[in-house]
Order: sequence, then structure tokens, then C-alpha cells
Amino acid sequence: MDRTKKAILELLYKNQGEYLSGEALACQLKISRTAVWKGIRILKTEGYQIKGVPHLGYLLQNVPDLLLPAEIARGLHTQIIGREIQHFPEIDSTNTRARALAKTGAPDGTVVVAEAQTAGRGRRGRSWESPPGLGLWMTVLLRPKVPLQETARFTLLSALAVVRAVTRVCALSPRIKWPNDVLIGDRKVCGILAEASGELEMAEYLAVGIGLNVNQEGSHFSPELRRKATSLRLACGRMVDRLVLIRALLEELDGLYLEQPGFPELVDLTRPYSATLGARVRVDPVGGATEGQCLTGRAVAITPDGWLVIEDDAGRRQVLHAGDVSIRSADGGYV
Amino acid sequence: MDRTKKAILELLYKNQGEYLSGEALACQLKISRTAVWKGIRILKTEGYQIKGVPHLGYLLQNVPDLLLPAEIARGLHTQIIGREIQHFPEIDSTNTRARALAKTGAPDGTVVVAEAQTAGRGRRGRSWESPPGLGLWMTVLLRPKVPLQETARFTLLSALAVVRAVTRVCALSPRIKWPNDVLIGDRKVCGILAEASGELEMAEYLAVGIGLNVNQEGSHFSPELRRKATSLRLACGRMVDRLVLIRALLEELDGLYLEQPGFPELVDLTRPYSATLGARVRVDPVGGATEGQCLTGRAVAITPDGWLVIEDDAGRRQVLHAGDVSIRSADGGYV
Repeated sequence: MDRTKKAILELLYKNQGEYLSGEALACQLKISRTAVWKGIRILKTEGYQIKGVPHLGYLLQNVPDLLLPAEIARGLHTQIIGREIQHFPEIDSTNTRARALAKTGAPDGTVVVAEAQTAGRGRRGRSWESPPGLGLWMTVLLRPKVPLQETARFTLLSALAVVRAVTRVCALSPRIKWPNDVLIGDRKVCGILAEASGELEMAEYLAVGIGLNVNQEGSHFSPELRRKATSLRLACGRMVDRLVLIRALLEELDGLYLEQPGFPELVDLTRPYSATLGARVRVDPVGGATEGQCLTGRAVAITPDGWLVIEDDAGRRQVLHAGDVSIRSADGGYV
Repeated sequence: MDRTKKAILELLYKNQGEYLSGEALACQLKISRTAVWKGIRILKTEGYQIKGVPHLGYLLQNVPDLLLPAEIARGLHTQIIGREIQHFPEIDSTNTRARALAKTGAPDGTVVVAEAQTAGRGRRGRSWESPPGLGLWMTVLLRPKVPLQETARFTLLSALAVVRAVTRVCALSPRIKWPNDVLIGDRKVCGILAEASGELEMAEYLAVGIGLNVNQEGSHFSPELRRKATSLRLACGRMVDRLVLIRALLEELDGLYLEQPGFPELVDLTRPYSATLGARVRVDPVGGATEGQCLTGRAVAITPDGWLVIEDDAGRRQVLHAGDVSIRSADGGYV
């Protein structure tokens, strides 16, 4: 039925503005009138406004403002990313769902997207606000043939894809905050949560969760986020078409994923967009000898392995593999 | 009941060689005679030979040659590793079980051990022969607070623990074949399969599977393994007590795990035991630019990150993150 539904939708799109008879649909698709009727009914339940008039046929009046797979797929030019898309009006967490799908054999490039998340997750167990219809809350399942410890570069690759897509669609200048947030100005517009599983020598899968604030107004954010977060709409002063944006994002991801640049190359590609390099930063490291010790200093380099080098006021350098980085803003506070 | 059973066993051990009356047991443990009787019955089903004589009581005659948690725990000196032990007469794979336990909250240091595996797994989807009662087929669940890409050092740490335990118990000189096999002479005696899952910045868990051939004779190995594998018994000419061995292994692991040496330190600690360094090798790399290309050369170094540096005949160096390494033996073949 899924294929029939898509084919009907395709024909309705082709004949936009005109009525298309049930008979013509049945004839062109070589299906029964009942199958046409069932397909139309499913499309309506998904939110498509389709007018049916006796003796005239069906007219596509309005497309729902939803990230439906058939809509995303229309005009999407990718080879791997988004070949399979699963859409949910509401879900606990797209990462959780993508990981469950990975266990049951979902292919490389599978995309899970939701209108809203009830338990959206950020890094290190934090929650992620995902109000209905206002953002891209999605996870891309990747199955690169690399050791588990090399999967980190796909986080950077995803951040770069977000930067490129946002630049392309909204003409904004987003920057990457090491290791995997995207900022506009001093505010967070996107977070990336990458989770992986497998043998150390060969990843089984990587689930790259992308939470991108698109059409929120200030009042949509919780009080604690209001001063730290922003949306594309707030930044560019207009509503952003989520379908155009997600297509751009999947295409940028696809291009980078096919190229598979190594870490040194990726570090070079992302350097111009770094919000961290050169900034005074405060870091709360994760793991290792410096766990729990808060460091301040200047971010002076990103190594070819993607690690951040901090230089403190005494000129001592430390290499960080992971951590929470706060960047000192113009007013002297850390964001 | 588990606690009662353990307490009864403890008292029987204390009074080894003498009968202990049911009444004395009940009185000392402050339990009913029925509870004593039930505990004895469970111990018997586990394989303990306990003689019961009216008016005399119970006598521990023989302990089964099994890796029962209560036996492993007797005289085990560890702080984290093996605080919880799960034993299975037969299981599909201890790694698979440990990963399932990890999902349901099993604590750091949980050990899963089996007498036999029906679907024992080696690296990259290979199978691992695990005949009943002849080896240590076990998985240690670790929950270090480190980024996922840093979990690789726990594989090396585990290999070092195996080397130390085998040296201590059997007076053999095992060597580590990069990245995570243990050899005696040119033959494999132990394989380590590490699987991990979690956020890239914070591992959720690491399952370190250890398959150690202990008491096999040559005929226990399949024809294809017979020339490549060995057991501790074959190497040292006598049966090895698996309980003594597993305790030694858990203790060595515990010590190293508490120290948490960094990668550079671990590389230094394992260098004297390396079977790979200095040898002529053939490598089948995993992932990256050299995927699928077979390299030959000399293994000249292990980097502080634990990666292998190969120098080919033209003097060109390559750094490998993962791969299958074959070492050229004295007769010119690769093992």
C-alpha cells in the first residue's frame, strides 16, 4: 500500500490545480478503484488535504507541514542518506528508535525523524527540548566500516553538514562549537548526540542524533534555555521551510559521507567555522587524568585527530578528547 | 536462598574432613532445619558431593570442577572485578549475555563465565571454539568513565592481565600479538573480543570477552586450529586448575583497572611482552584508506595511542588503527 500511496501522491502533484478522476488514477497506476480510494484515505489521515468531487475526481489542495517521508523524498538527491525514512508524529527519542532499528538490520543511511520528542536526549544524559513541528528532531543511522574509536569523525562530519545546510537555506553564518554543537552568534541552534556500538575494531553502527531549532520563537524555549538557545527563525527573521532544510541537510550529509574525508581533512574543512579556536574557554573534561578539574585557557588548536588543545595562562598545553566547553563571550561571561 | 547456600558451603569448608550436624548448621546460621536441607540440596544439584549421615550430619567430600561463583569468590581479592559473577553450564556467548546484562544495569566489574559456549564469538564475526570445561570462556563488563574512543586501552589492559595471570599460575612466557591476542610460542592461547556501546563522549559499557584455552589436548581442537592454537596444558605439560587461574586473572584485571594507566603507560607496560614489535608482519587493515590492501613490512613501533606502525621495505611508514596481523615465523610462514 505504501508504494500505491506514493504513486497516487505523485500523480496528484503532477496535476496540481486540476482534478484527476479516480478512473484515470486507477488506469495509470494499473490498480483497482478500491485501491485508489484506500490510498486517498491514507493520504488524508496523514494530513494531506485532498478534495474529492463526484464526476470530477481528486484535487490536492494542501500539503501538511510535516516531515513526511514522501515529502522529504520529493526532489531529494542522495545516494545513501535517507533512502529509508521513518517518520513519527511523536516519539520518545529518535536516537533510541534508531538504535533499536540498527539492532534489527536497518540499512546504512536510515533516517528517523519525529515532529516531537517526549524524551529527547542531549549529551551526557541531558534532556533536549523538542516541541512539536518547530525543529528537525532526527537521527541518521550510519554503518561505516571503521573501528569504533574512529566514529568520532562522523560527529564532526555531521556538524559540518548542518553548517553547510543552514548556510545554504537561511544565508546565516553558523559556527561549530567543539566538539559538536552549532551556534549562531553566541547561542546554540543545534546539538549533535552521537551514539555507537560494536566491536572496538569494527563499529556495528553509529546513530547521529541531530536536534536543530528551526521555527521556535523566544517564548517556545524554557526559561533556562531562553538566554542560551536560538532558532533559525529567530536568527533570520522568517519562518524556515523544514522540508527544504531537511533535504539540504541530508544532501550535505550524503555528499560528505560518500567522500569519507579523514579526520585531518575534516578538521581542515571545519576550521573556518570554528567558534572555539582562538577563544578563551572553560572546560569541564570527561574521563582521563583531568576528570572533574575545570580548566580555563585559550583554545589554540584542534589536532588532526579532532582533539582540542588548550593553553593555560602559564603556557601549559593540554589535549582534550571530550568535555563540556564554555566559550567566553564579549561581555566576559561564558556561554 | 543464594546467601544461605553460600553460608552453608562456607561452614562445610571450615569443617572439611569432619561431619557437621544439620542442627549445628541451623543454629550457627540462625536458620531452620528445612532451610539447611534445601541449601544442601541446591549445592548437590550444582555438583558438590556432600555426604549426609543420620546422627552425624553433612560432610563435604568433593567440589565439582566448575567455575561456580562461590568457588571463584573463595579467596578472591578484588575490589571491583567479580563482585558479581554469573555462571552458566552452557551459553550462546558470554559477550552477548554480558551486553544484555549491561542494558539492564549490571554493575561495573560483573563477570559472566560459562563452561561451554555454543556460539562463542571471535573478532569480526569469527567463531571461537569453546568446548565444555576446558577453558576460561568469560566476559568482564566494565563501565569506565571515558569517551568511547578511549575504550581500546581496556583491551590492551586485559591482554596484559592475561599475560600476568598466565605467567603467575603456569610459569609460562606468553606474548601479546597486536592488538589483542595472546600467544605462547607461535600459537594462539587466548583471544580477546572487546565490544562497547554508548555516547562517543562517554562509554555506557565495555564488554571484554576473554577466551583462554586451558586444558585442551591437541585432539580437542578442530583440524584447522590444531596447527595454530595451543592450550596452557599443552604448553606447560600439566592440567591447570581453572579456579586458581580465573582468580589470578580477575585479580590482575582488578589491579590494573583500579590503576587505570593511560594508553602511553600501558604501551610501555606491554612492550616487553610484544610478539609483534620487531617482527616481519603481514597486515589486512580494517577501514580507512588502506582497507582491503594487504601490507607487509616490519612492525617498528606502537604509538602512545596504541596504534601499530609498520615500515615497508622501501622505508615508508604506515600507522594502523586496527587490522589482522600475521607474524612471520622462523620457517618463513605467517602465523
